Amino acid sequence: MVFPIEGSHWINMDILLQALHSRGHAITILRCSKSWYIKDNNSYYNTITVQVEKAFDQKFITKIITETIEYERGSLPLIHFLHLTFGMFGTFVEAHETVGAFVSAMLDDQELMRNLKDSKFDLVLTDPCWGGGIILAKYLNLPLVFNVRWLIAGEGHLAVAPSPISYIPITGSGNTDKMSFFQRVKNMILHLITQIQKHLVVKLIYQKICDKYLGPDNDFDLLMLNADIWLMRVDFVFEYPRPTMPNVVYIGGFQCKPAKPLPQHLEEFVQSSGEHGVIIMSLGTFVSELPADMANEIAAAFAKLPQKVIWRYKGDRPATLGNNTLLVDWMPQNDLLGHPKIKLFVAHGGTNGVQEAIYHGVPVVGLPLFFDQYDNLLRLKERGGAKLLTVNTVDKDNNFLNAIEEVLTEPSYRMNMQRLSRLHRDQPMKPLDTALFWIEFVMRHKGAAHLRTESYKLPWYSYHSVDVVLFLAGVALLM
Amino acid sequence: MVFPIEGSHWINMDILLQALHSRGHAITILRCSKSWYIKDNNSYYNTITVQVEKAFDQKFITKIITETIEYERGSLPLIHFLHLTFGMFGTFVEAHETVGAFVSAMLDDQELMRNLKDSKFDLVLTDPCWGGGIILAKYLNLPLVFNVRWLIAGEGHLAVAPSPISYIPITGSGNTDKMSFFQRVKNMILHLITQIQKHLVVKLIYQKICDKYLGPDNDFDLLMLNADIWLMRVDFVFEYPRPTMPNVVYIGGFQCKPAKPLPQHLEEFVQSSGEHGVIIMSLGTFVSELPADMANEIAAAFAKLPQKVIWRYKGDRPATLGNNTLLVDWMPQNDLLGHPKIKLFVAHGGTNGVQEAIYHGVPVVGLPLFFDQYDNLLRLKERGGAKLLTVNTVDKDNNFLNAIEEVLTEPSYRMNMQRLSRLHRDQPMKPLDTALFWIEFVMRHKGAAHLRTESYKLPWYSYHSVDVVLFLAGVALLM
Repeated sequence: MVFPIEGSHWINMDILLQALHSRGHAITILRCSKSWYIKDNNSYYNTITVQVEKAFDQKFITKIITETIEYERGSLPLIHFLHLTFGMFGTFVEAHETVGAFVSAMLDDQELMRNLKDSKFDLVLTDPCWGGGIILAKYLNLPLVFNVRWLIAGEGHLAVAPSPISYIPITGSGNTDKMSFFQRVKNMILHLITQIQKHLVVKLIYQKICDKYLGPDNDFDLLMLNADIWLMRVDFVFEYPRPTMPNVVYIGGFQCKPAKPLPQHLEEFVQSSGEHGVIIMSLGTFVSELPADMANEIAAAFAKLPQKVIWRYKGDRPATLGNNTLLVDWMPQNDLLGHPKIKLFVAHGGTNGVQEAIYHGVPVVGLPLFFDQYDNLLRLKERGGAKLLTVNTVDKDNNFLNAIEEVLTEPSYRMNMQRLSRLHRDQPMKPLDTALFWIEFVMRHKGAAHLRTESYKLPWYSYHSVDVVLFLAGVALLM
Repeated sequence: MVFPIEGSHWINMDILLQALHSRGHAITILRCSKSWYIKDNNSYYNTITVQVEKAFDQKFITKIITETIEYERGSLPLIHFLHLTFGMFGTFVEAHETVGAFVSAMLDDQELMRNLKDSKFDLVLTDPCWGGGIILAKYLNLPLVFNVRWLIAGEGHLAVAPSPISYIPITGSGNTDKMSFFQRVKNMILHLITQIQKHLVVKLIYQKICDKYLGPDNDFDLLMLNADIWLMRVDFVFEYPRPTMPNVVYIGGFQCKPAKPLPQHLEEFVQSSGEHGVIIMSLGTFVSELPADMANEIAAAFAKLPQKVIWRYKGDRPATLGNNTLLVDWMPQNDLLGHPKIKLFVAHGGTNGVQEAIYHGVPVVGLPLFFDQYDNLLRLKERGGAKLLTVNTVDKDNNFLNAIEEVLTEPSYRMNMQRLSRLHRDQPMKPLDTALFWIEFVMRHKGAAHLRTESYKLPWYSYHSVDVVLFLAGVALLM
């Protein structure tokens, strides 16, 4: 049984579900009636649809995107930070409230819940960025597998493994794993804010549902930490090394695969680039257009290049667009990245695109917009594989053109991405196969309790041995 | 290049070396002229022999064994503990001094060192329970791979990964991963003692060698933490789950393999047991005999059983020995454990034997003597697969006979061991293949720096964010 999330998270989950289906598993998906991405019954899964009034959809994302770009371009960094942290918290809570209403409607439907109980599922697979799957697994008393990078707020890693904030950069901090004192201060402040946000959302929404439907003494955070396996959508070619746990399995890049041949018209366009090669640009699923002045600046920069350009862009045709640039509504991104003529990828820094760039070893000029995109791209920049721009400077002083020319002419960018590609591909098992192995492991053994510590059930003062240290200090003083 | 350790550690390393040889790698071993286990040139490795006066040998082990059994049988637990902790520290330092002398002799031989530098090895493989390989890797500037469970003192895990002492039992504490308050106090005290012992041995021996041969600013502990890959000789079927790091690879049970047919005389003896089956007993490589009264008690207990018994024992034939018991000098332990007629394994709790018992799913009666043996067996007992005896009570009140009869008649022991066996065997890749993959990974990429945090280079107050918390508290107070 799968309790998925909308948007780009669903795109990832879908790949896993198709692979599970091809191994003969029967899949049932819980979706709400206003689901944005998750279609009704499909050839490889069944759906159970719960009627809701409102759902997480384009409206929330558009609001976030528009406001973020506006603030990023028009404000001081501090104002931008305050807006991100506090101004958007309302939108964030509102989005989780739609999830809460969906989960409550589901648990209220007693016939549905009886059917689910009778169906004897092997496990619940969920993305814990929303809390619904966690509550459902407990209600049905089923093993729980996460397809995870983010929790309700903050990274999954920070909750499941010991995570010294001194060298683990908090998303949004713009820090790497090597920080100055004041970077560490900023990291700590952001960590505390994220934890408070998570605590508030859990308290306002998910804990109430636990109390109502699961009975007393079901702490939502403990239910979350009780998951059998965390399939973590990173690997340590992309992510900075950090402590981990035995039940965390790294599947970063599981969506990557060798390039297929391009459609004929694209192949012809690519070949027409001659020795100069091709640049591709995409700002992801959600961002299909940009403010007109920014689009014009980008188009003008592309027009000055000898390369051909394929640009995924749905907005009005920029006035400055050159003959070398092809605007497309959609492009086979993975197949293009794997094409030998592709010299450069202008990317927004979503996880999928960054992983595909690593897999194919293509250097990147990054134009991050929101969420984890800056931090994702920072990881490539740190390894010498990308150059980063910001929304508020991309259209000034030829920044965009200069960045592209630097990455095209300086060979180290490509060499570094090729090195990351070699490291990423040199694994004992393909990440998708690893994910399938561990999902099936949980089915075979009805969980993976032997890989999970129960340390999170200790009170914090015992976990950190504060009581023991005070006791020993007391004895020493007495003596 | 391999810098191995003597005794049972060598037996483990040797299995890895044979596998490396069979994959076409050339292996050179550094040994001392008085080496106890490590033979001169062999069909699958070359040796370089360094002349020494004294070496770690049977003498040290015999001293440890004799004193331990004597103290365990004759003293109060506190005296026994004090003896183990302080009384034997001299023997421990003396053993490491022989290693230090060996390493110094090696580094003093300038022609040898020049040859080693010219030989362009791909990596140094060592067991960091002795410090020689770590220093050698730095001297030759080579990538470093550990085949590890123990460091100079204490477990490798405790040094490389964040290890809350509140739920990670210290070896020798007799604790599990769930402890009462006073068990946690004991755990903390033992942890501190172990750390002090380690610090003293490093300071007295290995740091001096670093200062003399590697030049200033080469901290031995940092050189150790700089290893590329830690091949850890446990897995989480045997070991309690705990935090880990990306460059720690679990190879527990890599020495296990399916049983081969028994020699004819043993097969006939085993088959003669009929439906009752066979018990096997071994106290490991080092302990070939026991005090006469204890041996008599054990033999008398065996004589009362309907089972046949194969007992690896080199001491005088006990007077009470029954017709059903076969004394042998050596036995094919793995092949016997994999034989369907074997009902029970009386073991001392060395890692090899415990892993083989898990692999073949055979229940255990444990008679631990020293080192990690009690703690190893405790892990089986906790999972319901073993019954534990102690040296000071084994010969009283029919304890031995009762334990054997309980494990033979109560089916849960075998069922639990079979469950552990299923979990252990259900891995994406065989542990030996995993070890080979990561050794070759380090060869292919000249290290694995991307999997290693550099967090250990932070001062402790920064690592734990003490400075940041004090700063933020100061700011809050000022405001």
